[in-house]
Amino acid sequence: MQDKAAIMTSSMPDPIDFRTEPARYRHWDLSFDGPVATVAMNVDEHGGLRDDYELKLNSYDLTVDIELYDCVQRLRFEHPEVGAVVLTSGNDKVFCAGANIRMLSGAPHAHKVNFCKFTNETRLSIEDATENSGQTYICAIKGSCAGGGYEIALTCDYILMADDGATAVSLPEVPLLGVLPGTGGLTRLVDKRLVRRDRADFFCTVEEGVRGKRAIDWRLIDELAPRSQFAERVAERAAEFAARSDRPGNATGVALTPIQRTIEGDVIQYETVRIEIYRALRTAEFTIQGPARPVPADAAAMIAAGPVFWPLRVARELDDAILHLRFNEEEIGTWIWRTAGDSDLVAGADQALAANQGDWFAREVRLYLKRVLKRIDVSARSSFALIEPGSCFAGTLLEIALAADRSYMLDGQFEGDNRPPATVRLTGLNFGAYPMGHGLTRLQDRSLDDATRVEALAAEQGRDLDAAAAEEIGLVTFIPDDIDWEDEIRIAIEERAAFSPDALTGMEASLRFPGPETMESKIFSRLSAWQNWIFQRPNAVGEKGALRLYGTGQRSDFDRRRV
Amino acid sequence: MQDKAAIMTSSMPDPIDFRTEPARYRHWDLSFDGPVATVAMNVDEHGGLRDDYELKLNSYDLTVDIELYDCVQRLRFEHPEVGAVVLTSGNDKVFCAGANIRMLSGAPHAHKVNFCKFTNETRLSIEDATENSGQTYICAIKGSCAGGGYEIALTCDYILMADDGATAVSLPEVPLLGVLPGTGGLTRLVDKRLVRRDRADFFCTVEEGVRGKRAIDWRLIDELAPRSQFAERVAERAAEFAARSDRPGNATGVALTPIQRTIEGDVIQYETVRIEIYRALRTAEFTIQGPARPVPADAAAMIAAGPVFWPLRVARELDDAILHLRFNEEEIGTWIWRTAGDSDLVAGADQALAANQGDWFAREVRLYLKRVLKRIDVSARSSFALIEPGSCFAGTLLEIALAADRSYMLDGQFEGDNRPPATVRLTGLNFGAYPMGHGLTRLQDRSLDDATRVEALAAEQGRDLDAAAAEEIGLVTFIPDDIDWEDEIRIAIEERAAFSPDALTGMEASLRFPGPETMESKIFSRLSAWQNWIFQRPNAVGEKGALRLYGTGQRSDFDRRRV
Repeated sequence: MQDKAAIMTSSMPDPIDFRTEPARYRHWDLSFDGPVATVAMNVDEHGGLRDDYELKLNSYDLTVDIELYDCVQRLRFEHPEVGAVVLTSGNDKVFCAGANIRMLSGAPHAHKVNFCKFTNETRLSIEDATENSGQTYICAIKGSCAGGGYEIALTCDYILMADDGATAVSLPEVPLLGVLPGTGGLTRLVDKRLVRRDRADFFCTVEEGVRGKRAIDWRLIDELAPRSQFAERVAERAAEFAARSDRPGNATGVALTPIQRTIEGDVIQYETVRIEIYRALRTAEFTIQGPARPVPADAAAMIAAGPVFWPLRVARELDDAILHLRFNEEEIGTWIWRTAGDSDLVAGADQALAANQGDWFAREVRLYLKRVLKRIDVSARSSFALIEPGSCFAGTLLEIALAADRSYMLDGQFEGDNRPPATVRLTGLNFGAYPMGHGLTRLQDRSLDDATRVEALAAEQGRDLDAAAAEEIGLVTFIPDDIDWEDEIRIAIEERAAFSPDALTGMEASLRFPGPETMESKIFSRLSAWQNWIFQRPNAVGEKGALRLYGTGQRSDFDRRRV
Repeated sequence: MQDKAAIMTSSMPDPIDFRTEPARYRHWDLSFDGPVATVAMNVDEHGGLRDDYELKLNSYDLTVDIELYDCVQRLRFEHPEVGAVVLTSGNDKVFCAGANIRMLSGAPHAHKVNFCKFTNETRLSIEDATENSGQTYICAIKGSCAGGGYEIALTCDYILMADDGATAVSLPEVPLLGVLPGTGGLTRLVDKRLVRRDRADFFCTVEEGVRGKRAIDWRLIDELAPRSQFAERVAERAAEFAARSDRPGNATGVALTPIQRTIEGDVIQYETVRIEIYRALRTAEFTIQGPARPVPADAAAMIAAGPVFWPLRVARELDDAILHLRFNEEEIGTWIWRTAGDSDLVAGADQALAANQGDWFAREVRLYLKRVLKRIDVSARSSFALIEPGSCFAGTLLEIALAADRSYMLDGQFEGDNRPPATVRLTGLNFGAYPMGHGLTRLQDRSLDDATRVEALAAEQGRDLDAAAAEEIGLVTFIPDDIDWEDEIRIAIEERAAFSPDALTGMEASLRFPGPETMESKIFSRLSAWQNWIFQRPNAVGEKGALRLYGTGQRSDFDRRRV
């Protein structure tokens, strides 16, 4: 794989950029009809990330998914009037053929895994819009809908399919490619659509998939409609779902103006986020800047502030930074988190968000922060929070320290620094606003040994807690003093950089999510781990592997041992 | 890996045999003191499976675990008087160093994975004894307790550790070997012992582990005792736990006499289980023979029958057959399940087990059947059940059809065969006696789309259901008639044999366990899948991988990309 990786690197010299906007979309058509938006996949064959494959038959690569993600975000923020979204195809014969096979077979392991993680996050953001944001997704399928194509359908709340004797849904990854559906398909089949497991087994081994009445009977889709009535039925359903939405019909949206970012050498600078990369230590140090002044306290003023409203700006910049580092800085294995600012102002922003949860925009900002924090939870990077004088780990920003694998809080002051000792502060948003993928808050996640502790923590809301107090109630891992601080942090970072990156990934994924599981956490742990394993196996990616040989006419030569 | 696999095969010409007995143990000392048994690890360095490593420092390989498994089984069946088991070491300086590294680094991938699965099942059988059988395990640690050694401790209900300044517990797999603790360690840390995740992160990266008071404070152990008082404290705790047991103090045990098995060519024959292997199709066909006559209906008569009591005999023979096929027939990827006999007699055996659940022996037999059925659920083999005239898929045996990835039930009769059409029958034991690893019964597992269906099924108990009725209430997958039967089964089997074995493993592991998760299911899915992936990665097993280089003094050269 090494030589292939080298080739990839040389053909992808520019960093992958996740920033885009509808005017630049190459793969999606977006249209509006009052409370209903239609998002039609219409992939530009030549618009892929690399030039050694063509995105035929509405197959996708990362470029397609970057636009879909952008689109889902903009529908939420820029279109408060939209209560239902129809996800469909611009091609009447092919809904979507799934992830492009040549892209997958040519990509290095790390890119494949990162790609699947990002697509999974985007699929979950669609479900989040449906569940929490009053924007219900409906899938309208005409033509073949295979693999990743059907996985997109599975994220929608309602699936309509043309009853034309040809249109079918399928997950042909196992029989055709020797890999798994990589975007939650297996999990959503049995955990979301509640397809009986033996039927799911059959369905996942039939290349041609299932169509017509059996697709309904087996719960693979929700409704069949003849082609002649298809558009009408889709419109009817969309209108029904839109009518149930609690989004305001007459509000004005908030434009997601371009994110400003500069990359100079090893420094990445946004308005509220700064990242310094230390390559020898394989470390990226984030510093998040708290609000410079109080944020608007009422809904109208928040909306007027729009993209410069501090919580939204932090969410967008962090989101972009995390994706950038994941894809473009693969060897930077440890993320160090710092904050700088005034805890009162952060707590004020939390208060403003909490007080306006009845408002569509405040709700969107909070939900966006939730999704960004979840990205940290599932990032294959070690994460340490450093809590020092001058920091503002309060409420929403404290969540980052709680998401970290470890946190270090200075007990006292640094010599020669007369700023007061660091404190942390809990706000109302630490108690339910930002659940992790497995359904627990980060406070619950670290209080499983004593459920009453979360109640005790609730009583501490609003108080500034010094290092000893924060350790006492279990909010931080270690509280070295000035004498030990530098050595202890240095050793922790150096050790982390010396360990096997793969072992760390597996360890962190196992320790971060104790307790219950949800469909979402199962997708990221169970299913992803199996797919990662299969993506590494000669039966998929070896010279004679199924993924490698797909389309060549040659037959795979499998190692037949069952593992 | 191919050449290494060839070497392994040539140095392991004999099939691995899981049948043993205390008189033949090389690695464990077993002693009894009334209601307390002591199981002391005392590994024979030269008693390993291969001769290219020595089992130093109480490190283990499969031979050690086969004996431990046998021992756990015999304590349950042969020693009804034992209410507490002390798990300890025969070596005062070393409790256990975990799985032998040279064994791991030299073993082919499939053996490593199978080994971890079996050790996991044995660890879970220890927890099952504690939870359900009134036989509580206590761990007494003197000397270093590392990796798999500490994972054994984690399965015990109570962990005592010597407070001598030297004894420590550790999980050094990540820092030392670039792999994960493979026997549930990570999951048990945070899900069973409820160690806070940031502390678990630290603990799992410290080679030397944690000792003394921190081990208590962090919930890694339950009690510290000075060496001078250690034996006394252990005895006290054992007596306390034994006193709480509901096992009978004065009953006579049931001897687990040797399992009779013949292997002739491709036929494996037990008393109640016959297996025919078809190598071209990579298929093993199991036929389970129902009871020949009514089983004893009362507890005393069951105990008198002992090892020939049909439910116990089936459990033991199936258990051995599954382990044999997993380890010794790796390329046989599809297991076909048939039964032969009289459903009334199977239902009678179920009735006898159900009616005597207050008796220790009937309980043990039922719990054993539960564990054997779970082995099918987690076996990396495709499983099809064929329900034909003359079969007896009732109650306990019906669970096998419900555990299968698919079941085919003949609708009607075969031409020229005047036996009555096949039926299936539910008994009381289908409704809670045999939960799967994730806590659901197999009926619940396939009824998630409609929870009321399980109630409807309960009303069908005791009725013989023909193919149409069985399909109607969701008990079977397909019901071909005589005309389609042969082709449909043949195609299904041939297809299965043609697919990537790895993709099937990942698919089956994902589809078999919809719905909730438990610590047990997390160990087998999430953790195992991550470990499988890491076991496949060059950073662990490559020329410069950590597992490969351990003990050579050379440093690993990692691919630093985080995946």
